[in-house]
Amino acid sequence: MRTLIRNAWVLTMDDQMHEYHPGYVLLNEDIIEAVGPEEGPTLLHIQDLIDTADTVIDANDALVVPGFVNTHTHIGMIPFRSLGDDMKDRLRKLLFPLEADMTEDLVRASAQYAMAEMLLAGITTFADMYYFEDAIAEEADQMGIRALLGETIIGQPTPDASDNTPYFGLKMAPAFIERWQGHVRIQPMIAPHAPNTNDRASLESVTKIAIKYNVPVMIHVSEMDYEMAEFKDKYNQTPIEYLDSIGFFEAKVIAAHGIHAKGQDFTILHDQGVGLAHCVVANTKAAKGVAPIKEMLAADVAVGLGTDGPSSGNRLDLFTQMRTFAYAQKTYNHDRSIFPATTIVNLATRGGAKVLSLDHKIGQLTPGYQADITMIERKSLNMNPIFDPYSAIVYSAEASNVEAVWVAGQQLVANKTLTRFSEETISQRLQAQMAPFNAKVAEILGQE
Amino acid sequence: MRTLIRNAWVLTMDDQMHEYHPGYVLLNEDIIEAVGPEEGPTLLHIQDLIDTADTVIDANDALVVPGFVNTHTHIGMIPFRSLGDDMKDRLRKLLFPLEADMTEDLVRASAQYAMAEMLLAGITTFADMYYFEDAIAEEADQMGIRALLGETIIGQPTPDASDNTPYFGLKMAPAFIERWQGHVRIQPMIAPHAPNTNDRASLESVTKIAIKYNVPVMIHVSEMDYEMAEFKDKYNQTPIEYLDSIGFFEAKVIAAHGIHAKGQDFTILHDQGVGLAHCVVANTKAAKGVAPIKEMLAADVAVGLGTDGPSSGNRLDLFTQMRTFAYAQKTYNHDRSIFPATTIVNLATRGGAKVLSLDHKIGQLTPGYQADITMIERKSLNMNPIFDPYSAIVYSAEASNVEAVWVAGQQLVANKTLTRFSEETISQRLQAQMAPFNAKVAEILGQE
Ligand SMILES: [Zn+2]
Ligand SMILES: [Zn+2]
Repeated sequence: MRTLIRNAWVLTMDDQMHEYHPGYVLLNEDIIEAVGPEEGPTLLHIQDLIDTADTVIDANDALVVPGFVNTHTHIGMIPFRSLGDDMKDRLRKLLFPLEADMTEDLVRASAQYAMAEMLLAGITTFADMYYFEDAIAEEADQMGIRALLGETIIGQPTPDASDNTPYFGLKMAPAFIERWQGHVRIQPMIAPHAPNTNDRASLESVTKIAIKYNVPVMIHVSEMDYEMAEFKDKYNQTPIEYLDSIGFFEAKVIAAHGIHAKGQDFTILHDQGVGLAHCVVANTKAAKGVAPIKEMLAADVAVGLGTDGPSSGNRLDLFTQMRTFAYAQKTYNHDRSIFPATTIVNLATRGGAKVLSLDHKIGQLTPGYQADITMIERKSLNMNPIFDPYSAIVYSAEASNVEAVWVAGQQLVANKTLTRFSEETISQRLQAQMAPFNAKVAEILGQE
Repeated sequence: MRTLIRNAWVLTMDDQMHEYHPGYVLLNEDIIEAVGPEEGPTLLHIQDLIDTADTVIDANDALVVPGFVNTHTHIGMIPFRSLGDDMKDRLRKLLFPLEADMTEDLVRASAQYAMAEMLLAGITTFADMYYFEDAIAEEADQMGIRALLGETIIGQPTPDASDNTPYFGLKMAPAFIERWQGHVRIQPMIAPHAPNTNDRASLESVTKIAIKYNVPVMIHVSEMDYEMAEFKDKYNQTPIEYLDSIGFFEAKVIAAHGIHAKGQDFTILHDQGVGLAHCVVANTKAAKGVAPIKEMLAADVAVGLGTDGPSSGNRLDLFTQMRTFAYAQKTYNHDRSIFPATTIVNLATRGGAKVLSLDHKIGQLTPGYQADITMIERKSLNMNPIFDPYSAIVYSAEASNVEAVWVAGQQLVANKTLTRFSEETISQRLQAQMAPFNAKVAEILGQE
């Protein structure tokens, strides 16, 4: 089964940043078989491709890019969206009490909803940590999206902890990993919440399991002011120095945030091959700060973009991340020419793939890579004129401009609509599960 | 002709921040006749309204808000979008040379295009300064949108300067004002480019004309580092102090940017009744800085939001401005609770109306006010759940969620589509005028 996407403005994001306009991408099952220009000297003539493809899609000059990679989120948290956004102590006041009552059915409905939203925004791969992660994996399997998934491990009982004890995520990790390892699109992770919410024994167990099974570790790090103060007080170290000192980086680690990274942290992250999931919207919305990405990239740390959860970043698209990245980082560095749009689109595609150690199979449109592809239409007024297609993606585009999406060669979005599921059904499923949650929100807010 | 919008989540933005859910808005010609809840004790029963209205629109629980007010833009500049966005010296390298060749036909096509884009994003009023502003006024008249328009006055020949001398905008101002003053939706302004690009004589003439005709003045101020340095060197004053010292604020002034305002500036702006058009996206994208809005509001300066031109801010919607405002200002002030979403929606509606001295007729959904209304649908996945509708507007919504728009009681957008014009025709009109512009871009970039 070969699908030809033609008459496109193809941004390959490959090593040479090849751009074909007009260009084509030829999909063979789950693989990109060929990419190239429609005009000029090329090995394959476009008419031959048209004649031999099973399906031919005219992109109408749309931008065709590698699917976006969301390196950090919590897709079980759709129920929390727009709740207490500007509240100082909402973590303790709203999030923890509400999270205690989360059910598997609500998390499943939320996960499906969030994946639908991400696909419609052109995200083809995401990395998630939450509770009921085994159920989330089943939903992701159904959805057809690519995912790295890890159960959040934290030193308190979690809603899915059948034994009602802390560190439940640690106990269920081996079985979870064994179930999902080897899946064609879903990759298990192990995901301690943060260095300050896990004790040393837990973190050491995480590393052992990660090494034993060869799975990546995802952790929030250097995100909170009080986290920095705690490690300074206790160990005279940064959280990153502390994690390094206990051998935590012997496994492959994906660090979310890193807002307060400094000094030796950059060298440690680079030398230990830690990838950084930069969530600029969540970080700035919560007034936590602007992560030192210039320093990260100068130290050759792998950096990708992440939405964080829908209660932290609200929007589950990387367009908002890309342009907020530009606004925040250019201002923070007092330099309008730093991080040009090409660099930012790179972070949202190849950079993310590298952070997730998937850069050998996704993140660029190159023969042999997985056919994870996002098509961004140019007929909407906001998408013209385009002198620089990367600029158009970063500064002009929004999620609604995403016209079509393929993951592993399967077309999951066509004409801005999901191909396999109904948005209405997905919405109704979530609503049906929200009633007890909404009642508890009303109860908590009523107590104020 | 009475139109009833019912079954809505109405955010009036009135003095008491009344919210009706479910609620209705009743339009009578260009005026809001009534607003209220559909349930509970109310003077008018909803069934009576349904029976007597000429048209009944079921909002399907959509958010209904006052039309957004874009306090500063340059709608003739669509041709420049995505051109040199990350370039340090693009003003001299690209913008000035290209602007010299702008034609009336290109500006007209651009203006119509930009107004269409703004309407589709729920913007019902905008304030613009550019060249060929008389032609822009004709286009705005056709489009049905509400506008404040002023020809940019600058100490160099402009593309529409028939005599090829500086300060053409000053010469054409009286005739322009006389032509448009009294128009039901279009209000003339006079618009000197900036204090550092106009000599004192020009600025004094501006004030005289503004007072004579009782029209507002729009000017860029405290935007550039070198502007600040120049006034410090020459006069040991800030640009705002300088303008105050020459009596410039005797007219009603709308100041765009004010990024580097400080010290006495806030008091001056307040005491002189100057309104501030805050363009956070343009300012941060260009690494110019984050304007001191906390200080502005503390001094009770009127503040609204602006997109700036499509080459500066790229997107012509206030959703992007509202959330970037939140991200930038919360981070800048190290406080996640500062500027809650209600405040930000207020800036985008009432705040803008006040800046433009239109707060007696637009900016809130109150009986007697103009029927400038934006309806934001909630069926898209990104718009749910909504615990806080202001939060949903600021942090979740995007332009594509705008379902319907009324200006002065005329429905200009329905089902996310323009009612009076075709987007395709508007696009083709622009494209038809772009050829010489594109050729010159190629020539300039080829010279590099
Ligand atoms: Zn997170
Ligand atoms: Zn401007």
